[in-house]
Amino acid sequence: MPVFNFNAGPAKIPTEVFTELRQQLVDFNGTGLSLLEMSHRSDCYQQLHHEVLAALRRLLALPDDFAILLLGGGATLQFAMIPLNFLNAGQTAEYLLSGSWAVKAWQDAQKIGQTTLPFDGRQHHFTSLPATITVDPEAAYLHLTSNETIDGLQWPELPDCPIALFADMSSDIMSRRLDWGKIKLAYAGAQKNLGCAGVTVVILAKDLLDRCQETLPAYLNYRNHVRQNSLYNTPPVSAIQLLALQLNWIEKQGGVDAMAALSERKSSLLYQTIDNSGGFYSNLIDSRVRSQMNVIFQLQNNDMEKKFLQQSAAAGFVGLQGHRSKGGVRASLYNAVDVAATTELVRFMQDFQRRQGG
Amino acid sequence: MPVFNFNAGPAKIPTEVFTELRQQLVDFNGTGLSLLEMSHRSDCYQQLHHEVLAALRRLLALPDDFAILLLGGGATLQFAMIPLNFLNAGQTAEYLLSGSWAVKAWQDAQKIGQTTLPFDGRQHHFTSLPATITVDPEAAYLHLTSNETIDGLQWPELPDCPIALFADMSSDIMSRRLDWGKIKLAYAGAQKNLGCAGVTVVILAKDLLDRCQETLPAYLNYRNHVRQNSLYNTPPVSAIQLLALQLNWIEKQGGVDAMAALSERKSSLLYQTIDNSGGFYSNLIDSRVRSQMNVIFQLQNNDMEKKFLQQSAAAGFVGLQGHRSKGGVRASLYNAVDVAATTELVRFMQDFQRRQGG
Repeated sequence: MPVFNFNAGPAKIPTEVFTELRQQLVDFNGTGLSLLEMSHRSDCYQQLHHEVLAALRRLLALPDDFAILLLGGGATLQFAMIPLNFLNAGQTAEYLLSGSWAVKAWQDAQKIGQTTLPFDGRQHHFTSLPATITVDPEAAYLHLTSNETIDGLQWPELPDCPIALFADMSSDIMSRRLDWGKIKLAYAGAQKNLGCAGVTVVILAKDLLDRCQETLPAYLNYRNHVRQNSLYNTPPVSAIQLLALQLNWIEKQGGVDAMAALSERKSSLLYQTIDNSGGFYSNLIDSRVRSQMNVIFQLQNNDMEKKFLQQSAAAGFVGLQGHRSKGGVRASLYNAVDVAATTELVRFMQDFQRRQGG
Repeated sequence: MPVFNFNAGPAKIPTEVFTELRQQLVDFNGTGLSLLEMSHRSDCYQQLHHEVLAALRRLLALPDDFAILLLGGGATLQFAMIPLNFLNAGQTAEYLLSGSWAVKAWQDAQKIGQTTLPFDGRQHHFTSLPATITVDPEAAYLHLTSNETIDGLQWPELPDCPIALFADMSSDIMSRRLDWGKIKLAYAGAQKNLGCAGVTVVILAKDLLDRCQETLPAYLNYRNHVRQNSLYNTPPVSAIQLLALQLNWIEKQGGVDAMAALSERKSSLLYQTIDNSGGFYSNLIDSRVRSQMNVIFQLQNNDMEKKFLQQSAAAGFVGLQGHRSKGGVRASLYNAVDVAATTELVRFMQDFQRRQGG
């Protein structure tokens, strides 16, 4: 039976990536060794490491005044590292509470220093985002979550902001063009749009580095990693190997613009199906900020939802259950999910509705 | 040409592990999905996760009053997490400076709080370890590095200690039996004896958890990870998949006792070759504390050393160059290095000496 993988992360990885990984797994570049068995100081590993950094820079059209890091610990470790590095005593950081992940980032910052909330989406259960925001020009930075995986909403574009903008892009990096003139720091776990879990891409403007607290332990200090080109300690090689292959795959598909067109097409297919279902399926997110990455929807009652999830699972659809904190249905449409799988899901949704007399 | 991998870490991984990884890479347990594409909340991943924790507990003969964590960031992140969690204001932590890695752990602790040094091996360039140590019974903990990868020495057994003993075991975990009555916390990056880089095994006595600072950000708080069985956030799945296979391999070889016998045999072969070379090869480490994991040696001068490294590389030996901070030659004998490769190295060393008329 074919499997249609709509997991929210870790998520689908292109078949071609696995084909190449299998080929190079045991004997990397004719060395007779696996990349996983090589010193991270070896020429062979270092070449791959720098190719990954170069591919990220090329694909993201990242200017030279930004550094790229490949770190462990997931985006969750970044929730800590950001305020530890950039929220000094006496300063305030601003957090936009767009959804569940923004709240997690904010909770960590509160343990480090003072925070304020220019926008608090909890008031309307994370169903919308503000068109404009007002921030304190004296604040250390503004943090936002560009796409909310659990809540199914996404900033249609990043807000203009007079202070340094820091963005958790774990679930939409490499799915659309970014204006680096607006961003000072962006970070993303690889396991959604870039590969597998275990490596986090952190991009930061080099002029931020003067602000890093020098009293931090080595791993927690961004400056330390930038100085060493993310080779201060042994990097997470296996996840970086897969990242390299997936970046190569993205480039072959046509880069970020191709991914953006694909995301637009896939998410439109699903939102149209929902909106044309006469209320059989519903999505409560402000249509202006619906996520192109995670399409969430409800059915009319719990029984119907349960039936939908059971029958879709039996038909080969994987990962459609909404997040355990929220329920409902969620289809995640990261870069490796193709239009064909999305079309299959649309067909299933329409058939299911028909079968239920909806 | 055969390749003999003596890398210091990342290091050799058994061929059988790669064979199994290749088999399960694309279709894990008949699911039609790679493990890397599955939610870490899925039954399938969770089963593997708990199998890994159980295998570690079984192989290490770890009592139930210890928790096991699988974290990202390498041992280097643990250098920070240990004092952040356990070195409170007004307390002192004691560090034994056995070698280069112990110094790194100590440097991070100094950024967090007060430290003292019951032993400082820098005085004699890290060539010995004390038979006994005296610690302040009021200190928060005693930290040691059970094996020094760069300097080639190893605690023959862990010292008796009246306070909580914390050990960086990155380069000798799973190579010998441990007395858990002596240890409160142990940690190890997987890339030497357990698999590939990207996951760090942290073992800690549950009664330590009351001491964890609750004001820490989520990822930096051990208690948070213990509560969630290392599933607070997405774990580094690819490195854990390989860890699972390598633990299985270790178990099939006969477990820790088999690894210990193998380490003893391999390191004896090399030390005997050095000691019987009439000074052609030399090792300056106090023989009581020579490492069974990393055998370092010098030749009579730089030219001879260079010639040795060139000719050994040409003969298929990989990773024999000593650490860039130290020079010399180093053969790392982690679990996956077999006696046959070690015997080949002995033969090469003897032949080389003969050819040089040594």
